[in-house]
Amino acid sequence: MTKKQKLKIIPLGGLDEIGKNLTVVEYEDEILMIDCGLAFPGEDMLGIDLVIPDTSYLVRNRDKIAGLVLTHGHEDHIGAVPYVFRNINVPVYGTRMTLGLLEHKLKERGMVNDVARITVKPGTIKKIGRHFKVEFINVNHSIAGAVALAIHTPAGVLVHTGDFKIDCTPINGDMINLTRFGDLGKAGVLALLSDSTNVERPGYTMSERTVGERFDEIFAKSGDKRIIVASFASNVHRIQQIINSAVRNKRKVAVSGRSMLTIVDVAAELGYLHVPKGTIIDIEDINRYKPHQLVIVTTGSQGEPMSALTRMAFSDHKMVEIGSGDLVILSANPIPGNEKAVSGVINELFKKGAEVIYESLAEVHVSGHACREELKLILGLVKPKYFIPVHGEHRHLMRHASLGVQMGVKPKNVFVLGLGDVLELSADTAIVNSSVPAGQVLVDGYGIGDVGNIVLRDRKHLGEEGLIIAVVTLSNTREILCGPDIISRGFVYVRESEDLIEEMKDVVSDAVLAGRSTGNGDWNAIKTSMRNSLSDFIFEKTKRKPMILPVIMEV
Amino acid sequence: MTKKQKLKIIPLGGLDEIGKNLTVVEYEDEILMIDCGLAFPGEDMLGIDLVIPDTSYLVRNRDKIAGLVLTHGHEDHIGAVPYVFRNINVPVYGTRMTLGLLEHKLKERGMVNDVARITVKPGTIKKIGRHFKVEFINVNHSIAGAVALAIHTPAGVLVHTGDFKIDCTPINGDMINLTRFGDLGKAGVLALLSDSTNVERPGYTMSERTVGERFDEIFAKSGDKRIIVASFASNVHRIQQIINSAVRNKRKVAVSGRSMLTIVDVAAELGYLHVPKGTIIDIEDINRYKPHQLVIVTTGSQGEPMSALTRMAFSDHKMVEIGSGDLVILSANPIPGNEKAVSGVINELFKKGAEVIYESLAEVHVSGHACREELKLILGLVKPKYFIPVHGEHRHLMRHASLGVQMGVKPKNVFVLGLGDVLELSADTAIVNSSVPAGQVLVDGYGIGDVGNIVLRDRKHLGEEGLIIAVVTLSNTREILCGPDIISRGFVYVRESEDLIEEMKDVVSDAVLAGRSTGNGDWNAIKTSMRNSLSDFIFEKTKRKPMILPVIMEV
Repeated sequence: MTKKQKLKIIPLGGLDEIGKNLTVVEYEDEILMIDCGLAFPGEDMLGIDLVIPDTSYLVRNRDKIAGLVLTHGHEDHIGAVPYVFRNINVPVYGTRMTLGLLEHKLKERGMVNDVARITVKPGTIKKIGRHFKVEFINVNHSIAGAVALAIHTPAGVLVHTGDFKIDCTPINGDMINLTRFGDLGKAGVLALLSDSTNVERPGYTMSERTVGERFDEIFAKSGDKRIIVASFASNVHRIQQIINSAVRNKRKVAVSGRSMLTIVDVAAELGYLHVPKGTIIDIEDINRYKPHQLVIVTTGSQGEPMSALTRMAFSDHKMVEIGSGDLVILSANPIPGNEKAVSGVINELFKKGAEVIYESLAEVHVSGHACREELKLILGLVKPKYFIPVHGEHRHLMRHASLGVQMGVKPKNVFVLGLGDVLELSADTAIVNSSVPAGQVLVDGYGIGDVGNIVLRDRKHLGEEGLIIAVVTLSNTREILCGPDIISRGFVYVRESEDLIEEMKDVVSDAVLAGRSTGNGDWNAIKTSMRNSLSDFIFEKTKRKPMILPVIMEV
Repeated sequence: MTKKQKLKIIPLGGLDEIGKNLTVVEYEDEILMIDCGLAFPGEDMLGIDLVIPDTSYLVRNRDKIAGLVLTHGHEDHIGAVPYVFRNINVPVYGTRMTLGLLEHKLKERGMVNDVARITVKPGTIKKIGRHFKVEFINVNHSIAGAVALAIHTPAGVLVHTGDFKIDCTPINGDMINLTRFGDLGKAGVLALLSDSTNVERPGYTMSERTVGERFDEIFAKSGDKRIIVASFASNVHRIQQIINSAVRNKRKVAVSGRSMLTIVDVAAELGYLHVPKGTIIDIEDINRYKPHQLVIVTTGSQGEPMSALTRMAFSDHKMVEIGSGDLVILSANPIPGNEKAVSGVINELFKKGAEVIYESLAEVHVSGHACREELKLILGLVKPKYFIPVHGEHRHLMRHASLGVQMGVKPKNVFVLGLGDVLELSADTAIVNSSVPAGQVLVDGYGIGDVGNIVLRDRKHLGEEGLIIAVVTLSNTREILCGPDIISRGFVYVRESEDLIEEMKDVVSDAVLAGRSTGNGDWNAIKTSMRNSLSDFIFEKTKRKPMILPVIMEV
């Protein structure tokens, strides 16, 4: 018998604040991709639309990739496919719901015929490539059709939980298949990769069903009011419960917000959402109904500036004017970073006279991720030899690692990896001694990766301090023929600062002369002199440091 | 007997997300100012240093102002004094701690001799002007020397809680003087203005002392580790407890961060902080001690980019290098909007190998503001005729208003005011039927109010999309003598986009010709043509919308 090859695990995403999940599993000359997600830009990524993983390693090894397996249809797991698949093309495996959402995404970009998609069912196994047998295990999460993976390889079994929680009373489908996790554990699992999102929360995550019960109570007591519920578009279970409560209370449901409309369509078509006939009405038709006959389901639970709820709150929505006859439910928690935006929307709704129910006051939301006791339960069932916390910020991974040790994994067998680390595993050994390129690629408009640190640094400078342009036209003997002119943007309101502008012109004129004599007429010397003189002058006068751009035209 | 005048209450701050507390009380021809605070800029206020209230109403009526009363020394209550007092000059009343902090602030700006300061003691009454007798009532808060006010006027008594909580076991000084609130209530209170910050939190805020007990436990179990505690500089009670735990555990205390050094100095000098001799060492001397002999108290609990803790985390601190021998305690909650920054610092500390203890895991912080039951208690004791919730976002004011009604204030006597609203009160009537100018004034460098919406809009545009400048020099017959040149910043990395830049030059050349013929040589027509053509071209090529600045020089 030849010596068995090692199995490699390389995280290219999902290990930091940014998200964008993508894990590479490699055995001999074959690669399996798990998830291919995007992230939304951080505050410091000015003007960036979204962030995708650096996939240069995969592109270089594209011939080895056997397939991409998707655990579920959230953006941070499928959103990068349209970008990454410009350079890579492999079959994509996922459940009906996941592929339904992916299909919609590909359609929007005219790529729907370019990507092979293979639908899988929870409880089944697919052979992908020569070495990987991928088993799909039903889990509960805040989107329908979520699965964990057991990846059977010649080197052993990997279990990847995907995003999950344990919900014993789910809205659609079955409870997470804990028995299978246990059976895999009994047979022996080489490594577990597990969701770390909620590791800081004690206890168990509540069942999604508790939210429905709360909706029923609120709807029953809402009297004559129109009800507006904002939630994540992808949370089909939540939407199902809103529809159920609406039906029970004889209300019609109108949908607002592009992503919400998409999901309702996809989910209803695929049978994940059950809508009694005549329940859903067009948002254009809401004025035909009385307030107490209506529920409006909308996007905007994160206070996103262009979302339907934000537009409603700021009187900028075509069909919905918020007033004292409205009861607004924010059925979501602010994602870290969105707290202020959400708060702003809530304040605005109150100002319009609406009644607002939100998480810090009422149980109108539960998380989609497992809390500490659930995470321990999975560790206890799977009993992995090696444990790799994934899907969280570094602090979450560290705390999940401790939990793994608490649950009996040997400390030396727990790996908190960095992006691009290559973890090589065999039955006896585990080691990280190399890495591949990894990180984030910024998408801005059509540009993928053409906005880097220098551009972002300039954007930050321009955004915080504004800009002053000083232009002169010089003759070939370096005489000033025209100018200097001063143009400013984002600095001060010019009409009220005319004196300052005139003084700047004098400063620049002097600087041109000074630069001409010190630099023997060299343009760069003149420019440097213009920039430095103006910068010093402005800082002294205003204590500000706008970007200064000296421009010389030569005739 | 002549008919009594009405009392006016005009909030010029403290009623929105921004903060910056300032309330005006007016009787006949006299004005009393309560607090004069600043706010830190919102995310949309690019490059702004801080925000102060619009005080044009006060400036216009400066001769009527009898004095400024400060409830406590937090920035959102005293921070605008150096700015507002350029145009207003009246005596300032406050406790020793409050005026100690104000004095430091005034010294920094060379204004210390320009502002008359009158120290008051809790439990005393000052006559201010002819009409106001201001009584200072001891309260508990996250800073020493905090008081509530009972303002005795010919029209009745106003009670203003300031920022407060009920702490039956405070660290220094006495428990809040609930008896006095009760006696005032018994005698009859016309109106109550009360702190709404924590109205969404049920129950009671824990005593500051519980944090000290937690410090003791953590310090005792810390073994060989160096301990670093980050907290709000102004929370003298917290610093006292850190010092106490340090002394009990035979550790020296070093202080890092400018504002922390200031507070420790001011508070120790005024006797608010009790430091056993030899406890505090200079941060420059920490290397003379072993890790287990040290506690470092530092700023940066909000993840502020330039703060000491952030610099430590990112290996940018002169004296402190974080490593696996460190135990870091974040003894504060993130203020809304700072969550991501705080999270980033925590992740970085973990990456450096430090152990990190923070609020979501351990009780190392308590709020300085009253929760619902405490707010009810004050309402129940004071039994005001009119109730005006203050110090909170609109949603907090609304919920506090409901609480007032629950506690027996008539709904028509509860006023959720807007900035600048003039509430006129008498024993029988209360009405808002006018308003004065109010809002926010932005401070950027030396400039107060010279950055307005247009400048901010430009900054946002520049910051998110970057900038393209197209320059041409034209003859007086509108021939191109030189250029076009293209200069970009914050758009794309130019070296990798040379072709695009060349294409832009062609677009601009064509646009100059087109503009010249349509506009009969008019500069504006040429500029418009340059801007529009370039904008269309760039959007088509990149799907981006940078700011485009056409510049024409004429020789």
